[in-house]
Amino acid sequence: MKPTVGLIGLGLMGHPMGANLLKAGHELTVWNRTASRGDDLVAQGAKRAATPREVAGASEVVITIVSDPPAVESVLWGESGVFAGLRPGSVVVESSTVTPNLEKRAAAAAAAQGSEFLEAPVTGGTWGAEKGELVFMVGGEASTLKRVEPVLSAMGKRWFHLGPVGAGQTVKLAMNLLLEVQVEAFAEALALVTRAGVPGQSLLDVMQSSMGRSPLLDLKGAMMLKGEYKPSFPLRLMHKDLGLALDLANQLGVPLPAAAASREVLNAVKGAMTEDVDFSALATFWAKPSVRKA
Amino acid sequence: MKPTVGLIGLGLMGHPMGANLLKAGHELTVWNRTASRGDDLVAQGAKRAATPREVAGASEVVITIVSDPPAVESVLWGESGVFAGLRPGSVVVESSTVTPNLEKRAAAAAAAQGSEFLEAPVTGGTWGAEKGELVFMVGGEASTLKRVEPVLSAMGKRWFHLGPVGAGQTVKLAMNLLLEVQVEAFAEALALVTRAGVPGQSLLDVMQSSMGRSPLLDLKGAMMLKGEYKPSFPLRLMHKDLGLALDLANQLGVPLPAAAASREVLNAVKGAMTEDVDFSALATFWAKPSVRKA
Amino acid sequence: MKPTVGLIGLGLMGHPMGANLLKAGHELTVWNRTASRGDDLVAQGAKRAATPREVAGASEVVITIVSDPPAVESVLWGESGVFAGLRPGSVVVESSTVTPNLEKRAAAAAAAQGSEFLEAPVTGGTWGAEKGELVFMVGGEASTLKRVEPVLSAMGKRWFHLGPVGAGQTVKLAMNLLLEVQVEAFAEALALVTRAGVPGQSLLDVMQSSMGRSPLLDLKGAMMLKGEYKPSFPLRLMHKDLGLALDLANQLGVPLPAAAASREVLNAVKGAMTEDVDFSALATFWAKPSVRKA
Amino acid sequence: MKPTVGLIGLGLMGHPMGANLLKAGHELTVWNRTASRGDDLVAQGAKRAATPREVAGASEVVITIVSDPPAVESVLWGESGVFAGLRPGSVVVESSTVTPNLEKRAAAAAAAQGSEFLEAPVTGGTWGAEKGELVFMVGGEASTLKRVEPVLSAMGKRWFHLGPVGAGQTVKLAMNLLLEVQVEAFAEALALVTRAGVPGQSLLDVMQSSMGRSPLLDLKGAMMLKGEYKPSFPLRLMHKDLGLALDLANQLGVPLPAAAASREVLNAVKGAMTEDVDFSALATFWAKPSVRKA
Repeated sequence: MKPTVGLIGLGLMGHPMGANLLKAGHELTVWNRTASRGDDLVAQGAKRAATPREVAGASEVVITIVSDPPAVESVLWGESGVFAGLRPGSVVVESSTVTPNLEKRAAAAAAAQGSEFLEAPVTGGTWGAEKGELVFMVGGEASTLKRVEPVLSAMGKRWFHLGPVGAGQTVKLAMNLLLEVQVEAFAEALALVTRAGVPGQSLLDVMQSSMGRSPLLDLKGAMMLKGEYKPSFPLRLMHKDLGLALDLANQLGVPLPAAAASREVLNAVKGAMTEDVDFSALATFWAKPSVRKA
Repeated sequence: MKPTVGLIGLGLMGHPMGANLLKAGHELTVWNRTASRGDDLVAQGAKRAATPREVAGASEVVITIVSDPPAVESVLWGESGVFAGLRPGSVVVESSTVTPNLEKRAAAAAAAQGSEFLEAPVTGGTWGAEKGELVFMVGGEASTLKRVEPVLSAMGKRWFHLGPVGAGQTVKLAMNLLLEVQVEAFAEALALVTRAGVPGQSLLDVMQSSMGRSPLLDLKGAMMLKGEYKPSFPLRLMHKDLGLALDLANQLGVPLPAAAASREVLNAVKGAMTEDVDFSALATFWAKPSVRKA
Repeated sequence: MKPTVGLIGLGLMGHPMGANLLKAGHELTVWNRTASRGDDLVAQGAKRAATPREVAGASEVVITIVSDPPAVESVLWGESGVFAGLRPGSVVVESSTVTPNLEKRAAAAAAAQGSEFLEAPVTGGTWGAEKGELVFMVGGEASTLKRVEPVLSAMGKRWFHLGPVGAGQTVKLAMNLLLEVQVEAFAEALALVTRAGVPGQSLLDVMQSSMGRSPLLDLKGAMMLKGEYKPSFPLRLMHKDLGLALDLANQLGVPLPAAAASREVLNAVKGAMTEDVDFSALATFWAKPSVRKA
Repeated sequence: MKPTVGLIGLGLMGHPMGANLLKAGHELTVWNRTASRGDDLVAQGAKRAATPREVAGASEVVITIVSDPPAVESVLWGESGVFAGLRPGSVVVESSTVTPNLEKRAAAAAAAQGSEFLEAPVTGGTWGAEKGELVFMVGGEASTLKRVEPVLSAMGKRWFHLGPVGAGQTVKLAMNLLLEVQVEAFAEALALVTRAGVPGQSLLDVMQSSMGRSPLLDLKGAMMLKGEYKPSFPLRLMHKDLGLALDLANQLGVPLPAAAASREVLNAVKGAMTEDVDFSALATFWAKPSVRKA
């Protein structure tokens, strides 16, 4: 019989993950800070819980996917949080992008309550979440992973078991750094050619015939050329993730010069934007001020 | 009848280009500063010239592909250079990576002698050069491009006509910036995970399942994991190209923060290496000093 | 009559501040995590408390000067912390370098207990602390400042009332950024001339005849030339402060490119050092590996 | 008897240097690309030459102080340049800020004509030039310096003999890097405090009580607070000098992360300004777009 699943966080990633869990036949209980985000999932059969604690009480596998470390602290350790209602023998799957240390603390807290813990941040974007093709970067015990594989397989095609708790977030932060700096690289190249009077499309064409072509640059490059930045991977989240990567590197004594430089670009754009945009909007750093607030 | 071709520069790129020109049936005259680099081409039927001027005198299409702006200045304007022997009605195809301004000067000089000029820097690396799958970034007249397409097709599969002379190098410099910063991004991600105790192979695996995957990262990532840096795209040339991109950007007033940061990384590694290495050796910036001189 | 003073934190700054408070005739109660750091102050008449709470219970003015935000959280909010024993009507003077937000939280907590709060981070280094010539960057009510001026004057010559709580730390973080990047600038200039074969002393001489001369560069420049980095302002603390400045800037959307670049240099050096050093040891980023661990 | 002096270049620095040479009683011949810049010097007794060659023909000591390497190449090696008219036994004093290598070439050319050569770039700004308080960074033979000391003393108070030709420009480029990054540091600190709502004057006040205080920051800090950027040290020249410093560092394999980051800031501002401004206008990088073109 399929395990009952709880899902905490119904954002750009969590929402389609929930839809896929329902589609796969899991009994699903959901919670989101803004409850209405779950309306259609409820219409499709999900139960709505009033608190994360209630989700935990109703689930064998509890998945959390929220925006940042304070949000994870709140949904796990808050007064009405997961740890206030966790069922012994359950598994907590933490899929937010946070620090390795926070996951280690959460794993210890889960163990103290007789539960198992897996960190499983994801990559693949909203598109991957919708198609059920997410990739999970897993840290934790192999046996715990084994237990939740049926659940993961409802949402994604692949998972990498990267080591003990902490290894997943380390790789996740490194991956986001890679994605962000790759997009920064294209934005810089684009700024150079367009300021020199060469159409940006030319750069995109050549890039797509080069060794540097990636699905990410296909997608984000096209967004930059159109100047349309509907959030797929929101800039505010990438800004946060890059900050977490730099913090981790600074604890470890690892210099990250290009990531540090690019973080300040994201930062300037974040400070100037008036609405939620995709992180590829970092290209507006070079744009006419008309598209920026200040 | 196929045009007679002259080829000046038999380095990592020029040498396989010469082999492909011969294979395609062109009568070929070659010159290289270190003449012995052309021995096998001569054995395959190429004529060896004593000077670039001699190459020009023997050729309808003269291709130059040398290491940097001073080398281009020397082979074109030197006492025994191309412009000292250019045949009226011939075409000069300049495939080195240099500045847009240098190409404009060369185009004017060619025109003054009744010749045509095309800038046609390439991407694709030694692998592409050997397979005849180079991509040309062309600046110049469409009619000139038309004339030399049969020659280009012996060496590459695709060419992009990007605009007047200068547009080709602009895109080429932007592309090399993109490639370099993409590799820097992977190197930073790799430094982060390995210092945190996670195997680099894990990062490579996840990258290859992600939107950020590119043929370039497949290739350079594997080199970094092995720590083997046999030059495919030499670091000293990428260092030069990134400098040219930054110079162009600085003339245009375009800030390139991540490229600037990464150039200093390349620079530190260049200052510390004792032998010729691939530019992916920028990863040794984070290595134990044992693999570096200082 | 002089107010009774409590002093929590007897590090490089706190210790000489305590000595000056005793010299000025204040009844002084001290606490430090490593108690023995206070032995000589006790010998000079200070009382030793077992906990920060005990300090608070014995003092009209409680000064805290510890290493970082977690340390401030611990000495203020910990089980045996200041807020567990604060006397109504007392004043808390928080002189650590932390975030504006942490000071605002502390101010609110003090107010809730009927006490007043002043943030008063300092500049001037150990030298200034010993000579009683510190400069205080004060945020809080003017009336609160008025009350503690007699205490401040025992430790420093000047104080700037910069605005409400938060303004002091904002200026303090900005000042440390300025000091750090100024020293980075000298270290880069020094690396350039010495690698070019010009003696570093020449740069120091010219700097001292230039508009760029500062007491800081006189001091740190001499340390770099000698390669002696006895901690005056420890690198680990400057690394922390620069991180706090970058965090604040990233909340505000203010890009700080040179500070970000220099933080990564500090970071690399911190990761490679085996002992506690002054932040001017950032110059070893350019040194032969012999002086670095890795 | 005082040597006859030629002065080539009557810009912000050269012009007041010429006035001081006249005041000191030297017979002076001047040339400037825009001749009218010398009108008042001619009114005070200087002779006006039609070409740099004519200056050389009339002078025992020929001083050149022009804007950049191409300008030095032109006034020295041009058809009507200094080397076309240099008197045997004369001394060329090259005071522009250029590369060490260019000075070495110039020294060799002077020697080939039986003349002596001294590089002597200056620091002190227009203020120092007007007061006759420049500092010269000298590279060349001690005996040559000895010969021209009477001339230098008309324009400056101090000179440092830093080594053979090349050492002077090396230190000069390093010094300008130091000055520029120091001002960048203040601008970043200022951006941080003002965005946080603290008046910039507070930062200036605290800076002036700190170890980081320098005459440069007194001057440039005040300009930034007023938002008035009348060129004393023009941004376009500092941008050029920082580029030369980075080029030299990149030849030597010395990474300069903060200088590289700051160069891109200068660059962005240069690309956006519509008029000639002081380099302290780098602070407008953080300004509302109203003060910038784009």
